[in-house]
Amino acid sequence: MKYPLYLLKLVEVLKRLPGVGNRSAERFAFHMLSMNKEQLLEMGEIIQSIPSKLKHCIDCGCLVGEEVCTFCTPARRAVASLCIVASPRDVFAIEETGEFKGIYHVLGHLLSPMDGVGLDKLRLHLIRERVLQYQIKEVVIALDSTLEGDATALYIKQELESLPVSVTRLAFGLPMGSSLDYVDGGTLARALSGRAHF
Amino acid sequence: MKYPLYLLKLVEVLKRLPGVGNRSAERFAFHMLSMNKEQLLEMGEIIQSIPSKLKHCIDCGCLVGEEVCTFCTPARRAVASLCIVASPRDVFAIEETGEFKGIYHVLGHLLSPMDGVGLDKLRLHLIRERVLQYQIKEVVIALDSTLEGDATALYIKQELESLPVSVTRLAFGLPMGSSLDYVDGGTLARALSGRAHF
Repeated sequence: MKYPLYLLKLVEVLKRLPGVGNRSAERFAFHMLSMNKEQLLEMGEIIQSIPSKLKHCIDCGCLVGEEVCTFCTPARRAVASLCIVASPRDVFAIEETGEFKGIYHVLGHLLSPMDGVGLDKLRLHLIRERVLQYQIKEVVIALDSTLEGDATALYIKQELESLPVSVTRLAFGLPMGSSLDYVDGGTLARALSGRAHF
Repeated sequence: MKYPLYLLKLVEVLKRLPGVGNRSAERFAFHMLSMNKEQLLEMGEIIQSIPSKLKHCIDCGCLVGEEVCTFCTPARRAVASLCIVASPRDVFAIEETGEFKGIYHVLGHLLSPMDGVGLDKLRLHLIRERVLQYQIKEVVIALDSTLEGDATALYIKQELESLPVSVTRLAFGLPMGSSLDYVDGGTLARALSGRAHF
């Protein structure tokens, strides 16, 4: 005895959400069955309106609501630092730290030929253009410490080589509050080679 | 720096899903931002159409698609067994076992005065009516082994007391594949008092 067809369709659609497998999608679907009509209409409406209500800044790629981009203000441009991140979400995480005052550049993807993201999709020449346009002094690469992040960072460095700009990358080392016992060998090795005066 | 207003609204709506907190909802929301317009339209459309596409059988409360209820067939009624469950989802779990051939009665809720589900909301007289209507010989109570399940089961038993029907409840005991070391005391006690000839 299998589920009604429409329920299966609903489950399929919910499985597109990240980290949602069959079981979670079924739980979501059955919960939705117990929601009232108004709630379902509202939820559907909000999802459908995402493209018109949330846009990416055409300049920096950050997420903007209905107002102008708050990450592209003249005050921020004056800092002459450009932070390169993979997704609009990373921008909020970095803002939360309060440690960066400059402007952002959202790549949208990391280099990953297996997933069809080649060098052309990253459009690294845009970074070069912005560096020149805003007379950027420092480019901070804030990408994942993964194979894809490393590869992307290297290509960015290459792209900017001929420009008078210093390129830095986030530090690698022990996460805060961690114990040496639980840290993997790779992290420990990076923490050692990156040791600093204390 | 907080998220754009519309993103917060989307996160709030996604948090209505069971087991989805702030962090998961944010992950879902940012993933949706990277989905294309067609996918978002489809997802919204499917969610909005739930009330018209998936209904509950007015007789047994089971979930039905666009066809008639497959759980209310004359062949199943002839078995003269009625299984009482809390949610439409439980019906599919029981069907999966292949151990029950009769008809179902979906309560929709368990007794839980704290959540506003009193005796009146359970409408237990409907069970009584169906027992008489289909000349049911056995009522199988398949409810959770929780306080709410126990209380609901007791009221159902009371409601059916005066009728010539045997009322049974799912067995309690060790889950299959479990080790005595890991079973809680309450389960072990029920397994002992319910021991059977081997």
